[in-house]
Amino acid sequence: PATGGDASMYGLIGKLRAQPGRREALAAIRREATTAMPGCLSYVVAEDSTDADALWVTEVWDSADSHQASLQLPQVRQAIARARPLIAGFDAHVVTRPLGGAGLPQS
Amino acid sequence: PATGGDASMYGLIGKLRAQPGRREALAAIRREATTAMPGCLSYVVAEDSTDADALWVTEVWDSADSHQASLQLPQVRQAIARARPLIAGFDAHVVTRPLGGAGLPQS
Repeated sequence: PATGGDASMYGLIGKLRAQPGRREALAAIRREATTAMPGCLSYVVAEDSTDADALWVTEVWDSADSHQASLQLPQVRQAIARARPLIAGFDAHVVTRPLGGAGLPQS
Repeated sequence: PATGGDASMYGLIGKLRAQPGRREALAAIRREATTAMPGCLSYVVAEDSTDADALWVTEVWDSADSHQASLQLPQVRQAIARARPLIAGFDAHVVTRPLGGAGLPQS
């Protein structure tokens, strides 16, 4: 269901660095915000297995527009504000074009 | 449903570099292999939006055992063999512990 000019899926792969010892708290906030986001096909929060303060967030949206709109949702805005003091930095932030695979509603 | 000693989910985030011009062919092979892999909760193949030869594969499994077992499936073995000549290298290969989020069967 394309709403804008680009009907392709939109993906994000981010590596967040938590303040020392705050990864679990940061992960909880990121997970809470993922309910009821229109157009979100997948949103996975994962701990790096070897980097103790690193958290990976991988997202698949039905469009870039849906992702952009999500940033205005009240629960997302609140989560971003609550997460900010727990984040030391962003080690990676990659925009992708998901092609498909397994586990996506439309694949 | 834990089968081994570790009941937690198992994740992989990989950045593959295709031989020049072969990303589309490589992506097709990676996507074909994702059907009927027991324990695979999510397997997304995505093009990097700015790096023309880079392909991201993000995987979530119900356990490390399920991922390991998948490597012995005939269609996976065949896909690995067919993909090999199209791959120039691996820019990233990260093991994660997915905590949950949206779009996973068990979250």
